[in-house]
Amino acid sequence: MSGPPTTLPLRSSPDYWASANADIQAHLERAIQIRHPLAVSEPMRHLAFSAPETTAPALCLLACELVGGSRDQAVAAGSALRLVHAAASAHEGLLSSRPRKDGPKFGPNIELLTGDGLIPFGLELLASPTTQAESSSRVLRAIIEIARASGSHGMVEARYNEIEMIDSDGDEEEWVERVCKKKEGEIHACAGACGAILGGRGEEEIEKLRRYGVYVGMIQGIVAAKRVGRGRRRRRRRRRTWLERKVGELRELGLNELKGFDREKVEPIASLMLTSEHDRRLRVTD
Amino acid sequence: MSGPPTTLPLRSSPDYWASANADIQAHLERAIQIRHPLAVSEPMRHLAFSAPETTAPALCLLACELVGGSRDQAVAAGSALRLVHAAASAHEGLLSSRPRKDGPKFGPNIELLTGDGLIPFGLELLASPTTQAESSSRVLRAIIEIARASGSHGMVEARYNEIEMIDSDGDEEEWVERVCKKKEGEIHACAGACGAILGGRGEEEIEKLRRYGVYVGMIQGIVAAKRVGRGRRRRRRRRRTWLERKVGELRELGLNELKGFDREKVEPIASLMLTSEHDRRLRVTD
Repeated sequence: MSGPPTTLPLRSSPDYWASANADIQAHLERAIQIRHPLAVSEPMRHLAFSAPETTAPALCLLACELVGGSRDQAVAAGSALRLVHAAASAHEGLLSSRPRKDGPKFGPNIELLTGDGLIPFGLELLASPTTQAESSSRVLRAIIEIARASGSHGMVEARYNEIEMIDSDGDEEEWVERVCKKKEGEIHACAGACGAILGGRGEEEIEKLRRYGVYVGMIQGIVAAKRVGRGRRRRRRRRRTWLERKVGELRELGLNELKGFDREKVEPIASLMLTSEHDRRLRVTD
Repeated sequence: MSGPPTTLPLRSSPDYWASANADIQAHLERAIQIRHPLAVSEPMRHLAFSAPETTAPALCLLACELVGGSRDQAVAAGSALRLVHAAASAHEGLLSSRPRKDGPKFGPNIELLTGDGLIPFGLELLASPTTQAESSSRVLRAIIEIARASGSHGMVEARYNEIEMIDSDGDEEEWVERVCKKKEGEIHACAGACGAILGGRGEEEIEKLRRYGVYVGMIQGIVAAKRVGRGRRRRRRRRRTWLERKVGELRELGLNELKGFDREKVEPIASLMLTSEHDRRLRVTD
């Protein structure tokens, strides 16, 4: 057993994430080929690769490595998570309450249909023939996790909550719980759990990495929302203070879940809890 | 080996299909429960159960029985196929080139989001924990089949073809090949193959039932499209003659694929090739 990773010197090193993302990108580049009819495959490539960045896919790979698995075991699941995110982004632009500023590149019909194809394609990648029966059951479990997180009681419900609260000046606490926890929290939780499942670890580690994912996702949600920048100055300051405190609490809770793992291996996955970048982004929105 | 099933007295007996559909309905009723938030789960139930009828889900169950499997082995795959069809129907109503006459019941945003949740939910049902390692790999294979058929190079490409040809007065032959074969043909092919896979049969039977599915689907597509009823009388007559001949050919080809299966067991799955109903429907459109 190693000491508490909260004492780790968290260097400003996004390299781990960049390298995991590069592996996912390469996997998807090979999988999504331009083929006839171009009107179908071109928008698919475009939507898959142009979606805004998210940390969940890389978390899946790093969680797998943390429990002693190899990155290869999780790269298809990471790719599926990226496609789930891309599908959600494509359809988000079509919701009539939040028209995208730049408008859909391919017209709404194509973005609707193409978005429809991305999630099944991701799960197809994940289900690709495996040779060992043991890994078949792990893959099935990861499929259940990802399907649940992207389905009607996961992502879809989260977007429903978000739309409901979109113009709400409501309580920050409620927003963090109903939107950040449900939206970014659950998909990151799924990513952490899938990494541990595919790495072949037991229930305790799976649940630890699931909880770690919730905290990472909530922080991502808070930081990405740029919620500080609205309203009067005094209110903004109060909000920022509250959000900074909240991010701090979530970071502690998250790092706490990494206790007990191999201390040597904790740094890559812990690097997402990095202080400086979050603080910078919260500050920019002030 | 049994004689050619083309000589079977094909009685007007849709009971086999009705009973397979009832099993799928019951499976879905148990799986889709009304839960909080109602704004998410109610439209999901509605869209899942209100989609127009399709024969692919039942074909999956009957194919499984034909190869000696039990209906239970295929009911989750049949349910997934029904949800894939329901998702496509929900999003079809949102395509701007084909507004639905009655309009979406829940508003376009809800139908978009709810449709998004249906396919992952279907695949989640299919991936539900299985105890035997042997059946895990069959289930994974069925997931790949269904994901591929509902993804960007399956259903999505088919809908693209259909939209392209929607107002085309083009060649019947081209329409049958590009729309009916790709749209109804492929999803029925997937259903037949999945039934055989889940029933535990070898490649030869899987491919026979895949081809049988193509023919069943093409006939369904031709009969459902009511394409005869447009244009001048002489042209309509010519079209009807051509389509009737085509349906006859497809029926022969389909029944041919059922040769070699247990003669006793062929009747249920062959009953979809029933003459009278198709002819009646083609006639009505004249």
